Amino acid sequence: MAGLYPQALQRLIQELSRLPGVGPKSAQRLAFYLLSRDKAALTRFSEAVLSAKELVHPCPVCGGYTDEALCSICADPRRDRSLLCVVEQPRDVVSMERSRSFNGVYQVLGGVISPMDGVGPEQLAIRRLLQRVEEEHIREVVVATNPNVEGEATALYIADLLKDKGVAVSRIAHGLPVGGDLEFADEATLALALADRKPM
Amino acid sequence: MAGLYPQALQRLIQELSRLPGVGPKSAQRLAFYLLSRDKAALTRFSEAVLSAKELVHPCPVCGGYTDEALCSICADPRRDRSLLCVVEQPRDVVSMERSRSFNGVYQVLGGVISPMDGVGPEQLAIRRLLQRVEEEHIREVVVATNPNVEGEATALYIADLLKDKGVAVSRIAHGLPVGGDLEFADEATLALALADRKPM
Repeated sequence: MAGLYPQALQRLIQELSRLPGVGPKSAQRLAFYLLSRDKAALTRFSEAVLSAKELVHPCPVCGGYTDEALCSICADPRRDRSLLCVVEQPRDVVSMERSRSFNGVYQVLGGVISPMDGVGPEQLAIRRLLQRVEEEHIREVVVATNPNVEGEATALYIADLLKDKGVAVSRIAHGLPVGGDLEFADEATLALALADRKPM
Repeated sequence: MAGLYPQALQRLIQELSRLPGVGPKSAQRLAFYLLSRDKAALTRFSEAVLSAKELVHPCPVCGGYTDEALCSICADPRRDRSLLCVVEQPRDVVSMERSRSFNGVYQVLGGVISPMDGVGPEQLAIRRLLQRVEEEHIREVVVATNPNVEGEATALYIADLLKDKGVAVSRIAHGLPVGGDLEFADEATLALALADRKPM
């Protein structure tokens, strides 16, 4: 099939097919769609990609995404700073916020412990979590890693690490389908999972 | 939900959700994925979008996409120039080529006749088609517009237009699911549809 597309189009299709959930057919569809738009629209599109990367960075406190000095949650005086929710990725903060059931603050780990992928506690923000528990007046850590093998193992690791630190550690309830992905949970399920969290 | 994302991220999500088949959740997923990549990868991505738009243009003969003076099909001396396949969009040329069942050349219409959308024959490359039939030695025109209402109407319009021009006009067979989309047909179905084309 080589030579079916002009080279620049082939390269665009290749770039698009790297996106998660985009197969070769979708990549082709997206590429032809993009070519059908005018240059101004594509310039806006490209700039949105590059300026997001330029402006958005991890919040120095929690690791969530922000384009300011602090993220909107860490900067919000109405949030309960004694309640800390641990999540894997910046996107998981958005999922938790959508449940409208959590008024604490966050710590983003940046992943999960996964020896197969060479990720141990030192590659994650575990030390930062420990520091916050020791330095801030946190009464409870809610562990909201994904309900799959690595997420559960990471939750257990964190619970063990914090067990003598004078802080309650809880795990969001298995209202989430086991083996699932936090990002795709609906708001109601996440709200239930928060309400039903158990001490660990 | 306003304020859930930093502004630059919100804008990226908006741009991504304009893509066909990308809903708000997928757009969020794509945006977080893009942010997780390094700047070099995103620059390459943006450049692929812009340079495709810059370099790829319609072939002056057939209207298919190319980044050279002529598209690879029009420039290929082994193609049968007496057999002309009429398709709606540049992407349909790729679908037809994938069937490996057509050795003629193409004319891209740029759409279909659709009074509801204000598209008449004069907005399409119908005049160009007529010109080619009159000036080139074409023995058969295969009409491969999509097998839906507008595609059929456009096919009938073309058949009527060409009926006294001394050229055979055929329609690809309804091996395609009716109401479907040429872009998603598999190679075998398209090959059957070509083999079974009927005079009209």
